[in-house]
Amino acid sequence: MSRIAYVNGRYRLHADAVVHVEDRGYQFADGVYEVIAVQRGRMVDAEPHLSRLDRSLSALRIPWPMSTRALRVVIGEVISRNRIVDSALVYLQITRGVAPRSHAFPSGIASSLVVTARRLPPFDRNAARKGVAVITIPDIRWKRCDIKSISLLPNVLGKQQAIDAGAFDAWMIDSGGAVTEGTASNAWIVSSAGELVTRQASNAILNGITRRVVLDIAAEQGCRLVERPFTVSEAKSAAEAFLTSTTSVVKPVVRIDDTMIGDGKIGPLTEDLLDFYAGHMLADGVRSA
Amino acid sequence: MSRIAYVNGRYRLHADAVVHVEDRGYQFADGVYEVIAVQRGRMVDAEPHLSRLDRSLSALRIPWPMSTRALRVVIGEVISRNRIVDSALVYLQITRGVAPRSHAFPSGIASSLVVTARRLPPFDRNAARKGVAVITIPDIRWKRCDIKSISLLPNVLGKQQAIDAGAFDAWMIDSGGAVTEGTASNAWIVSSAGELVTRQASNAILNGITRRVVLDIAAEQGCRLVERPFTVSEAKSAAEAFLTSTTSVVKPVVRIDDTMIGDGKIGPLTEDLLDFYAGHMLADGVRSA
Repeated sequence: MSRIAYVNGRYRLHADAVVHVEDRGYQFADGVYEVIAVQRGRMVDAEPHLSRLDRSLSALRIPWPMSTRALRVVIGEVISRNRIVDSALVYLQITRGVAPRSHAFPSGIASSLVVTARRLPPFDRNAARKGVAVITIPDIRWKRCDIKSISLLPNVLGKQQAIDAGAFDAWMIDSGGAVTEGTASNAWIVSSAGELVTRQASNAILNGITRRVVLDIAAEQGCRLVERPFTVSEAKSAAEAFLTSTTSVVKPVVRIDDTMIGDGKIGPLTEDLLDFYAGHMLADGVRSA
Repeated sequence: MSRIAYVNGRYRLHADAVVHVEDRGYQFADGVYEVIAVQRGRMVDAEPHLSRLDRSLSALRIPWPMSTRALRVVIGEVISRNRIVDSALVYLQITRGVAPRSHAFPSGIASSLVVTARRLPPFDRNAARKGVAVITIPDIRWKRCDIKSISLLPNVLGKQQAIDAGAFDAWMIDSGGAVTEGTASNAWIVSSAGELVTRQASNAILNGITRRVVLDIAAEQGCRLVERPFTVSEAKSAAEAFLTSTTSVVKPVVRIDDTMIGDGKIGPLTEDLLDFYAGHMLADGVRSA
């Protein structure tokens, strides 16, 4: 079956999904995006994703290309036309639109909207429990990482540096020696004192939707929870570590640079959070129709 | 006459110049670019532009889509097919190519190449002598501004902030209070002591081709020249100020925030440098055939 993408008003074969070379997303990284998981055919946490999208657009003064209600219809249509009945990722990108190249905002143009979907294998709890390694690298990104922009070149370079080092991801370190986040995920530890720690939302990190749901779950479960920066050395001596993102869900981190975390396997609190999150993700899919 | 663009092996009508939505330039800002001036139908300083392009590609480990010799043929063809006989700007962009969305470098794909051209009015010395205002804003960009990447969102936001304030551009200020550069230009002053000052090349600025040519001219002319950072307050008390770029050439800056520079008109050294640069630009066009 052919993949279908939505591009600026038309549903097209994925292979024919094209934008103009003067789309400002292509020449200036002047756009934003969201990645929304689909489970059992339905979107997970669509509401907070779309509300974060609204925040990103506002921060860049990019007009909505259509109402959120219409966007939900388009996303639903992309899911349906791709005959997605189980797991998938929906990718949506909005840019400032097409205009002759000039840095300043052009006037009188329409924002561009692209929505694609990609099937995934169904969620596999055993695979999800498998730990990964991260390396640590300097955080060289700009100072507005809270905006989910497509200006992702430093994230790409960081991720590749991790792959080259045989790791899954890179945790980025600010000038004070504290972890900001992964290249496409938020970073968490369970400190040696048993506190669940993740950096507070600020301009230095993207406030992940999975991050927020896990915070809620942890609070409901009565975890000792604190949102604050933590250093690399604190992370290396942590009892547990994990990362969260839409695509990685709750993923155990069992090695940081050359240091094994805990016994090198998923820790007990990480496992609980993974199970609760998986429950939310699969149930939310059913609920959020 | 229709504009023609080169896109991945084909010369197309500008309106039909499209790339796939999964081009990594569109989703990750994973690409680089150059803007080369054309005067009297010929490229100005093509050699250093292409050699900087090579440096940018190497820094990001993006393979050349073709040899530089072949690229020069393509650029010449774009100039010719657009019947450019006087002033124009050639824009060329290379990205890592098209691949299913995933941060890490994909393997086995071809880099994307786009070349466009846009006619300009012929160089007008009187218009060029006109001074502009700049505002100063915090430099919030990433730490590899030496790479001429398309990850330009902070530059776009800075330029728009300048436009909103009624200025031509914004000079960006590092955490130490020193000017890095403009959003699409390098920043220069003639200090109250008569030194010509511009920030030295480093990861904090893009080493502009016009910047380098002006440095050469200034050295040839025996200017007292120093490459070092300068603060906003030093700039505001400067005898002269200007900015350089391929599109702005040598442009007098006669106001910084609310402070008038000199007597509010182009300064004598700026004027000399503008004239020498214009001579180079127009002659180089003829020479570099």
